[in-house]
Amino acid sequence: MITLASDFGSPYPAAMKGVILQQSDARLVDVSHEFPRQDVRAAAFWLREILPYFPPAVHLVVVDPGVGTDRAAVVVEAGEHALVAPDNGVVLSAARALADDELTVYEIEDSDAESSTFHGRDVFAPAAAAVHERWQTDEPIGALDRVSRVDEHVDLRLPEPDIRDDELVGEVLVVDGFGNVITNVPGYAIEGFEQVEVNGQTVPVGDTFASVPVGQWLATVGSHGNVELDVNQGRGDEAFGLRAGDDVRIGL
Amino acid sequence: MITLASDFGSPYPAAMKGVILQQSDARLVDVSHEFPRQDVRAAAFWLREILPYFPPAVHLVVVDPGVGTDRAAVVVEAGEHALVAPDNGVVLSAARALADDELTVYEIEDSDAESSTFHGRDVFAPAAAAVHERWQTDEPIGALDRVSRVDEHVDLRLPEPDIRDDELVGEVLVVDGFGNVITNVPGYAIEGFEQVEVNGQTVPVGDTFASVPVGQWLATVGSHGNVELDVNQGRGDEAFGLRAGDDVRIGL
Amino acid sequence: MITLASDFGSPYPAAMKGVILQQSDARLVDVSHEFPRQDVRAAAFWLREILPYFPPAVHLVVVDPGVGTDRAAVVVEAGEHALVAPDNGVVLSAARALADDELTVYEIEDSDAESSTFHGRDVFAPAAAAVHERWQTDEPIGALDRVSRVDEHVDLRLPEPDIRDDELVGEVLVVDGFGNVITNVPGYAIEGFEQVEVNGQTVPVGDTFASVPVGQWLATVGSHGNVELDVNQGRGDEAFGLRAGDDVRIGL
Repeated sequence: MITLASDFGSPYPAAMKGVILQQSDARLVDVSHEFPRQDVRAAAFWLREILPYFPPAVHLVVVDPGVGTDRAAVVVEAGEHALVAPDNGVVLSAARALADDELTVYEIEDSDAESSTFHGRDVFAPAAAAVHERWQTDEPIGALDRVSRVDEHVDLRLPEPDIRDDELVGEVLVVDGFGNVITNVPGYAIEGFEQVEVNGQTVPVGDTFASVPVGQWLATVGSHGNVELDVNQGRGDEAFGLRAGDDVRIGL
Repeated sequence: MITLASDFGSPYPAAMKGVILQQSDARLVDVSHEFPRQDVRAAAFWLREILPYFPPAVHLVVVDPGVGTDRAAVVVEAGEHALVAPDNGVVLSAARALADDELTVYEIEDSDAESSTFHGRDVFAPAAAAVHERWQTDEPIGALDRVSRVDEHVDLRLPEPDIRDDELVGEVLVVDGFGNVITNVPGYAIEGFEQVEVNGQTVPVGDTFASVPVGQWLATVGSHGNVELDVNQGRGDEAFGLRAGDDVRIGL
Repeated sequence: MITLASDFGSPYPAAMKGVILQQSDARLVDVSHEFPRQDVRAAAFWLREILPYFPPAVHLVVVDPGVGTDRAAVVVEAGEHALVAPDNGVVLSAARALADDELTVYEIEDSDAESSTFHGRDVFAPAAAAVHERWQTDEPIGALDRVSRVDEHVDLRLPEPDIRDDELVGEVLVVDGFGNVITNVPGYAIEGFEQVEVNGQTVPVGDTFASVPVGQWLATVGSHGNVELDVNQGRGDEAFGLRAGDDVRIGL
């Protein structure tokens, strides 16, 4: 199985699929091609949340603001999973979630790519197909053509919140398509509270959206385990005036 | 085969797919993840129109404004199809279209869901995979773990129009992505007419969009068999000033 | 394998998939359902750029402003590929890219389509499934029911630029989802230049988006081999004030 994720929208992912299907019979599963454009951190978050639900697979990820520069292309082996991506750290949080103590990073030689603007098609898709096919032959990743193990690579760690006795200081990681504001504050920190102060305003804490009337805001623990700022059947980002990267101070 | 439908947009459906693929080799086919948000009636309409075109399958449907409340999760067995969904009636119109006289409803126990906000991933996806896998074993749905037959469940019937001699009184069920206004008035009611009055304005009746000049409005019989209010190569919703739920009076 | 492309958005493509899966076990791969609405030329461009990356397949294409009129439905056989589409030329550029000297065009009889507004479901999907299934039997396309070879069909050729010594006169073919402005001027024509005049304004030429600072415009050679007008991490269409069909004069 090969999963595909990018910020390409449509129709560019189809060219990647064609390239893969020329080389491989892998099942293809789209994770998303609607990641926020060129936002490596948002993609890193979503991949960390979603890829651990998959069985062993090759994960092709292209969110690549540096396409065409000399940033490398990498394969990260994480237990039974392999992640093929630009060397900008986008898959490292997911790789750690998949197999924290078993990461090996390989670089993919991409010097003769057909284009300098679409490495998804010309570099990453063929590499993902090749990594997938070696499963048929039990070949280790390092034995593939154009692939060599490296010691240095770009990492990216999602920001950690500051958990104090009476205040949780974090930030917005992403806003989802419903307008739910997903923070980096762990959900356990608000458990047991009936209400909290979010950036100075009192907000009820609820187990479910429906714990407040339609149109009302709340703080809840989202499906990813973090504190989420929502509106029941509405948009939390608009109600709270928050977007990705903004600071969030939660007073207890 | 498992089809998937939701109002999730992207990337949440991918987590459901990962969960299913951990348990099953089923072919996965997306119906849509762009249903209008938390609009159970619109989803019910689209499912009724689309699912009957599929061969026997498990249909996973998550449009669930009540996620996390004590609304139940159900499996509706409809002939050779099974529909897994929240117990809000969203799949009942489709189920009746698939097999009107063979519906059996089962409840899925969901008390230990990991999250209270993403039952698509934590309750419905595993249930759909389990229902699919029992096909391998000829097991009846009722024999599955955590599944038990129920007599009571939530139903939802799409509104019926009032067909009079000189007037058809109905409403807008949905507006599609082209802006076509899909009513609940059956198409046969306008057949043979050259024009009708729509909310007081004279509108030509045409077999095809192209039966009127580009940019002009018309009433036609849509692909679902209902009266549809359109603009040739334009948006009917804007031209008619109508949206889902609005009343439509068609004078003959 | 059957690929699907349309301007349908969601959820109409699912009905086409259901119809196909009733008749065939083909692998289904979406090319895009987000082509600009009823823009035959934009679809022709994207198909020409994307389909050649696929292995032999049946390509189902529905961008069909004339649905319900007496325009024919066709199958274009191009080497090992077959393209099923309305007879408006939408697949001809792709067919030539797939197999320039081996095109054969067949007409599909569609006189008893269920609807006059959704031939994707009622005419093209069943035809694509039938064309795909004949691969199991080695049957030639012309031997299929309701299919007959024709000598005349609608063609569509993308506009050719005028390449002069000191000026390249072309036009915008499409704007992609990133806002990149894709012209019909071949990339070789600007190779070796450090800057060009685009509609009278001086623009640097770069190999990659990152060859200019974030937010700055550039002319580059896109992944399709044509001159593209972009902004590094921004929208070229807004910066250049250009959209599909606009004239582009590039002074050297």
